[in-house]
Amino acid sequence: MSNSSSPIRVLVWGENRHEKIEPHVAEIYPDGMHTTIAAGITENLGDRARVSTTTLDEPEHGLTDDVLADTDVLVWWGHAAHGEVADEVVDRVHQHVLSGMGLVVLHSAHWSKIFGKLMGTTCTLRWRSERDRELVWTVDATHPITEGVPNPIIIDQQEMYGETFDIPAPDELIFISSFTGGEVFRSGCTFRRGNGRIFFFSPGDQDYPVYHHKDVRRVIANGVAWATTDRPRRIPTLLRYDTDDFYNGHGYTGPIAD
Amino acid sequence: MSNSSSPIRVLVWGENRHEKIEPHVAEIYPDGMHTTIAAGITENLGDRARVSTTTLDEPEHGLTDDVLADTDVLVWWGHAAHGEVADEVVDRVHQHVLSGMGLVVLHSAHWSKIFGKLMGTTCTLRWRSERDRELVWTVDATHPITEGVPNPIIIDQQEMYGETFDIPAPDELIFISSFTGGEVFRSGCTFRRGNGRIFFFSPGDQDYPVYHHKDVRRVIANGVAWATTDRPRRIPTLLRYDTDDFYNGHGYTGPIAD
Amino acid sequence: MSNSSSPIRVLVWGENRHEKIEPHVAEIYPDGMHTTIAAGITENLGDRARVSTTTLDEPEHGLTDDVLADTDVLVWWGHAAHGEVADEVVDRVHQHVLSGMGLVVLHSAHWSKIFGKLMGTTCTLRWRSERDRELVWTVDATHPITEGVPNPIIIDQQEMYGETFDIPAPDELIFISSFTGGEVFRSGCTFRRGNGRIFFFSPGDQDYPVYHHKDVRRVIANGVAWATTDRPRRIPTLLRYDTDDFYNGHGYTGPIAD
Amino acid sequence: MSNSSSPIRVLVWGENRHEKIEPHVAEIYPDGMHTTIAAGITENLGDRARVSTTTLDEPEHGLTDDVLADTDVLVWWGHAAHGEVADEVVDRVHQHVLSGMGLVVLHSAHWSKIFGKLMGTTCTLRWRSERDRELVWTVDATHPITEGVPNPIIIDQQEMYGETFDIPAPDELIFISSFTGGEVFRSGCTFRRGNGRIFFFSPGDQDYPVYHHKDVRRVIANGVAWATTDRPRRIPTLLRYDTDDFYNGHGYTGPIAD
Repeated sequence: MSNSSSPIRVLVWGENRHEKIEPHVAEIYPDGMHTTIAAGITENLGDRARVSTTTLDEPEHGLTDDVLADTDVLVWWGHAAHGEVADEVVDRVHQHVLSGMGLVVLHSAHWSKIFGKLMGTTCTLRWRSERDRELVWTVDATHPITEGVPNPIIIDQQEMYGETFDIPAPDELIFISSFTGGEVFRSGCTFRRGNGRIFFFSPGDQDYPVYHHKDVRRVIANGVAWATTDRPRRIPTLLRYDTDDFYNGHGYTGPIAD
Repeated sequence: MSNSSSPIRVLVWGENRHEKIEPHVAEIYPDGMHTTIAAGITENLGDRARVSTTTLDEPEHGLTDDVLADTDVLVWWGHAAHGEVADEVVDRVHQHVLSGMGLVVLHSAHWSKIFGKLMGTTCTLRWRSERDRELVWTVDATHPITEGVPNPIIIDQQEMYGETFDIPAPDELIFISSFTGGEVFRSGCTFRRGNGRIFFFSPGDQDYPVYHHKDVRRVIANGVAWATTDRPRRIPTLLRYDTDDFYNGHGYTGPIAD
Repeated sequence: MSNSSSPIRVLVWGENRHEKIEPHVAEIYPDGMHTTIAAGITENLGDRARVSTTTLDEPEHGLTDDVLADTDVLVWWGHAAHGEVADEVVDRVHQHVLSGMGLVVLHSAHWSKIFGKLMGTTCTLRWRSERDRELVWTVDATHPITEGVPNPIIIDQQEMYGETFDIPAPDELIFISSFTGGEVFRSGCTFRRGNGRIFFFSPGDQDYPVYHHKDVRRVIANGVAWATTDRPRRIPTLLRYDTDDFYNGHGYTGPIAD
Repeated sequence: MSNSSSPIRVLVWGENRHEKIEPHVAEIYPDGMHTTIAAGITENLGDRARVSTTTLDEPEHGLTDDVLADTDVLVWWGHAAHGEVADEVVDRVHQHVLSGMGLVVLHSAHWSKIFGKLMGTTCTLRWRSERDRELVWTVDATHPITEGVPNPIIIDQQEMYGETFDIPAPDELIFISSFTGGEVFRSGCTFRRGNGRIFFFSPGDQDYPVYHHKDVRRVIANGVAWATTDRPRRIPTLLRYDTDDFYNGHGYTGPIAD
């Protein structure tokens, strides 16, 4: 029964490239998208969270083992530079997620290396960026992630993401979006992998001010709270158990006995 | 490995009231909606199915125990007269589904007694009948029910059914629809209950010629094929098993030993 | 984000027949099984819960509409007298669950009217009461319901419940049990129905002191906490929505327009 | 409606190391485990399948692109030499599975690179190899994979694999095993990934004659039939769709417009 009074340690990771290269994005997000996303989490969780940010261009992308060990939930936004994220860092994040770190995957991070590695599929979809209105409909009305948001959430302008979205069937389908053009998308999904909880939420293209949207911020904050676990961080490990000894596992010594 | 050459015995049950009362429905379905639905199944399954029909106004609604025992898959369309279906007949159908009879639930039969009894929820939703265009998107691209239909299926005019649809999370989510007004709906869902397989497919209001639509007919036929089992029909039964005797169950004699 | 400081209002419903009729049960549970179950919840949740009890022989089985409206989570134990529970009361409980009241279903309540009505299946299984040891294994290692219990939980003597258990595929499979005789059982399962959350947990036969077991008590308390929602209680209702008016639903006036 | 009369093209991949190194394994499987597994499939599917085999020591492990393109379902057994499988070959198999090739993953292949890549988790578990009896219980009584086998399947001697098994929640849970020592395991699970279907089935350690077991052979053959799709093989691909053009996708030209 998680009653811990210590705040959730949240780290928002931003690719931070569009903001630097494209003036229209910089105008919407003058301090970077990650800063706006972080502000939205603080706006909703207040003292319940301690929110910081880091970006791709930091050494080791700002994701050293120490940093990850000090993070309860990692929020990931990436788009133009997925390929620049070092495989070694991806492996490190993967291990932390499987050990119990929460992960909130935003928008085009559906194609991030870390999400693909966790899902095992192409994570591809259909798309169009033509200022469609997105309506985000609640499918799971009592899920903690849907608390406090209207049904639907109305986003005036957004990139269209449409089905078929090549992901494993989610553990929980939370939101389905529609777009002006008539496409639909499973826009809010949860997945458990190892000891970690993952929430994918698709609204949030860099071309539109989606992370200034009150309801979108609330959903992300809800997702952060949901993805938090207070269990000790621990990677699942192969152990041998003697008959009638259920609690003392022994380390693995290889597939062929001496 | 089901290789049986005997045809699937399909029974299409129609409420058959709108067709009698409302001229504009009779114009679309002069022989009744059930007849058109049946023709669509035959069109697609040919010799693989033996399709018959029955209606609410038949004695016992055409659903005697003998008829159900001779049915592999029951297709159900109802709307205006759910309340007229006798509870005794609903219980009988329920027992046959749990024993292995397939059930295809169409459109407003989401509110039929039999579907509610199998789901355990209100099965309610949001709706509007204003000639919305419905787009039926494939979510599960390799499911046998989606075989041979385009993504999306375009239905020019339909009643809108929208989320939140109060059903249990389906075992498989096959289709999601959107409507002109922007609403979305889990329009194709499968459920296993007891030894029976259930496919819910929402397109098909009486006010529009939906069951004349080539792709809708294909989906219903696919659903019939999917819902068929060749296992012997058998209701799950409580049995007591002695230690080390895994295969010979004994009948129940009551909760308190003599 | 549910931060409410008011305690969870828990009501433990006990059939309370074995305790009156069978001396060996009365010896294990001198104040009734419901009292012991309630004590276990209080032991674990402390001030977080306000726990009361009621039984079958109370007027309306102690489950008036006022009582249910004042209950966040109902815990149900029944076995010998499922048939004595009035259908009217079952319907009332059903409405409250679909409206958001949590329900924890214990042991032989798999065959209670309320669980069957919510599941839609026979809920039957294989069984034997011969003092098998039950091991309760954790499948979902980070689920809040598994917090604080060993893997496995060891119950020295229990009734055997075995597969195939005729329930809908659970939303989450939390525990799987094995028994001395080698049988297995999905012993901890969650289901969402309407706005309500349901946790089924099978350990707990009247012939053995299972509800005095520390870990079993912890799981039940965890299940109570998990099944609680702080959303307003509300039954899902059919509403018509005009195009472009997403938030103001209109009441239903019948299937055939005037 | 898959009515194709052409046989399922099955390829059984065997690591084939234990058979060469360990005399007691060679005695059970004189022609290699892969040969025995293949024979079991032919025994059950007859003319419905064309079964061939290949092994780790073949060039490119016998898994060239041409070979995979000619394979409907790949059956994988590996244990001692997972690390010797070239990443390049694993990537190739991964692409074929996501494009629609079926995959049946046997026993210790839970730790194969290909299964881990598809699952995204550690796929670890608890184990012991001490001649436990394994009972394989049917959870999903009408699934085609359970057709024709007793409940339970009794395997006299087997390695123990126990929970917690670190996999994503399976799309369908088919079998649960118990072992003499009391452990339980989700021994039969299905997963859909991309356009491919995956069946994991755990019985089958090299130290015991499990692949000579009639029921185990039947389950594997059922799994092969289930994992087959007759849809064209095709990798899911990102495509842009213009508004109102639902069927003609355009190729991706990069994340930042010129």
